[in-house]
Amino acid sequence: MFGRVLIAGCGLMGASLGLAIKSRNLAGQVVGWDSDHRATAAALERGAIDQVATNPEAAAAEADLVVLAAYVKSLPELLLRLAPSVRAGTIMTDLGSVKGSIMAAAREPAFIARLSPGAVFVGGHPMAGKAAQGAVHADPELFTGTVWVLCPPPAPRPEEVLSEDGRLAVERLKALVGALGARPAVMTAEHHDRAVAAVSHLPQSVASALMNSAASLDQQTPGVLDLAASGFRDTTRIAASTPSMWRDICLDNREALLGTLEQFESELAAFRQALEAADAAIIEDFFERAKAAKEGMRN
Amino acid sequence: MFGRVLIAGCGLMGASLGLAIKSRNLAGQVVGWDSDHRATAAALERGAIDQVATNPEAAAAEADLVVLAAYVKSLPELLLRLAPSVRAGTIMTDLGSVKGSIMAAAREPAFIARLSPGAVFVGGHPMAGKAAQGAVHADPELFTGTVWVLCPPPAPRPEEVLSEDGRLAVERLKALVGALGARPAVMTAEHHDRAVAAVSHLPQSVASALMNSAASLDQQTPGVLDLAASGFRDTTRIAASTPSMWRDICLDNREALLGTLEQFESELAAFRQALEAADAAIIEDFFERAKAAKEGMRN
Repeated sequence: MFGRVLIAGCGLMGASLGLAIKSRNLAGQVVGWDSDHRATAAALERGAIDQVATNPEAAAAEADLVVLAAYVKSLPELLLRLAPSVRAGTIMTDLGSVKGSIMAAAREPAFIARLSPGAVFVGGHPMAGKAAQGAVHADPELFTGTVWVLCPPPAPRPEEVLSEDGRLAVERLKALVGALGARPAVMTAEHHDRAVAAVSHLPQSVASALMNSAASLDQQTPGVLDLAASGFRDTTRIAASTPSMWRDICLDNREALLGTLEQFESELAAFRQALEAADAAIIEDFFERAKAAKEGMRN
Repeated sequence: MFGRVLIAGCGLMGASLGLAIKSRNLAGQVVGWDSDHRATAAALERGAIDQVATNPEAAAAEADLVVLAAYVKSLPELLLRLAPSVRAGTIMTDLGSVKGSIMAAAREPAFIARLSPGAVFVGGHPMAGKAAQGAVHADPELFTGTVWVLCPPPAPRPEEVLSEDGRLAVERLKALVGALGARPAVMTAEHHDRAVAAVSHLPQSVASALMNSAASLDQQTPGVLDLAASGFRDTTRIAASTPSMWRDICLDNREALLGTLEQFESELAAFRQALEAADAAIIEDFFERAKAAKEGMRN
């Protein structure tokens, strides 16, 4: 499907992508690069990459597909760094959890001027992950059954026509994503960022706040956490995720997350007020709406 | 371990207890009663009970162990209804999610006067459950590995001595709970109610508010919920639980739940303010504390 693939960033996501591509024979060769040589060593050890690149620009120049799989904060810089090296026809994409900032970087004239003619950047975000980080936890089925968002260059607006290179790049990535067992979903960065604020960044913030509250109450009344059952365990599972990663994601998607936080806070405040007033009807309606919405979901 | 057991209330919890007792041969006979005859029919069909009682007072009079497994709201009334029928030596217990109200009912002189001499009520709460309700979803392993709270009569205070009957009843229930694969934990109703507010009732409220918020945002921006991945699914899993049951639990444990809600709201507000100020250090600390607390838990 691709000749040579460069995966720039060999953490959980990058290494899982390498394993997923290799286990399905979707590339002739998978090359890995990471600023931390322990990450590439672990990825090589896991069989997630065939070869370690020491010079990412040189590796990008020989790749047909360049996947930026670093932490979200460093993606715009990495994109600008590698863009001048890629050759015509190369597709660049990323796996970042927020799309606004990197798509904005990709729209800047300075970037477009540096990108080789015929090369294209398509934003990407597979809606997959797990709390455990690093190539050692890589999983070739991490993306199976998940939604994989693709943001075409430039953001499609009614008056714009996607370039032929851009259209082809999106089609090739849709085929790759489908071959990896995921469902491609093409949308603007703005739409993506509002949606993930609601279904990913808000739940992360809420699960962490819940864990912190329960821990505080456990300090006041020892033994509280001993009574936690499966409901608590599931609701707080993602609270074990990497703090620095979530710090960066929240800051990067700050505006959209603040909007969803406000929505959540008023929903919870209305429930608290109903409880203060012992209003059985409003309390039941609150749980009814949640049950109906949950049951209306695909998963 | 017991001769005849009466399970008064044949929903998920009562029927699961019947299955758990019968599969381990812990009683000579398990009799089931429910105000809804479809519930007892389903429990009989599942093999959770040996026999259906049509008159709960008569069945209680012949039982060595009476387990009140009805919805939390009806427990005090059911306790008062059956107490005069039980014979000396019979142990009564319940499976309710809140212990303050039923233990208060069991401490009232009017109740003590009606209870047969030598009979004892011990409050109980197995920290187990699932969203699906009804005997049809009963599971003999529902209690395996969970904590099962027992509240002795009367609430143990330093100046009080538990009666010999009370002490023996607690010991026999601890043995039963252990034989069911659960871990007995003896505590006061007050301690229990504060703890479950933090690790059960607050998570339920938060998961439901999160589901409601995401559904509202999905209405404003269609397609939001299509991007939900495993993190969202786990964090909102319990939002599918029975609304009327949670309405009653929240009202019954209103004071303790309001306290934990206040704690949670201020935790989340501090996070939102840090995000508004783009304060990376406070945001990271928020996620760090949650990760450390989560990793410090047994499960």
